[in-house]
Amino acid sequence: MLAKIFIKPKKGILDPQGKAVFGALSRLGFSQIGDVRIGKYIEIRLNVNDKSSAHADVQKMCDTLLVNKLIEDFTFEIVEG
Amino acid sequence: MLAKIFIKPKKGILDPQGKAVFGALSRLGFSQIGDVRIGKYIEIRLNVNDKSSAHADVQKMCDTLLVNKLIEDFTFEIVEG
Repeated sequence: MLAKIFIKPKKGILDPQGKAVFGALSRLGFSQIGDVRIGKYIEIRLNVNDKSSAHADVQKMCDTLLVNKLIEDFTFEIVEG
Repeated sequence: MLAKIFIKPKKGILDPQGKAVFGALSRLGFSQIGDVRIGKYIEIRLNVNDKSSAHADVQKMCDTLLVNKLIEDFTFEIVEG
């Protein structure tokens, strides 16, 4: 199983990296952009066969280590293979 | 439109952050993990109505600024709203 975890700064939390990329894209001529938010993308390969136990494990990994819930939102999905 | 861009280190490229998280998860008792890769997740809000032009724009943003193709792979999707 492969877990794909998407973490991004919470709405309202300052995202300086996103602001910098917004500025750079604007200067490159991309004028139609409204907002840029930059977060983390984590892939974890899991040696388990049971999707629901994989789901529970990844939730626990996010809760205990991967995500700072004060400032970050996250979603994840488990895919086969 | 909202562009969701997923960037990760290419296969074979050293990922020290991923190695560190792998170690930390192992020490926390998650023994069933095989590999951890850490990349970037970027959300860009686009003020355009045409999905295919949004697609072309985001491809160009990745090519010119967002992705270092020597060491990173990327995929993206465009969602409505």
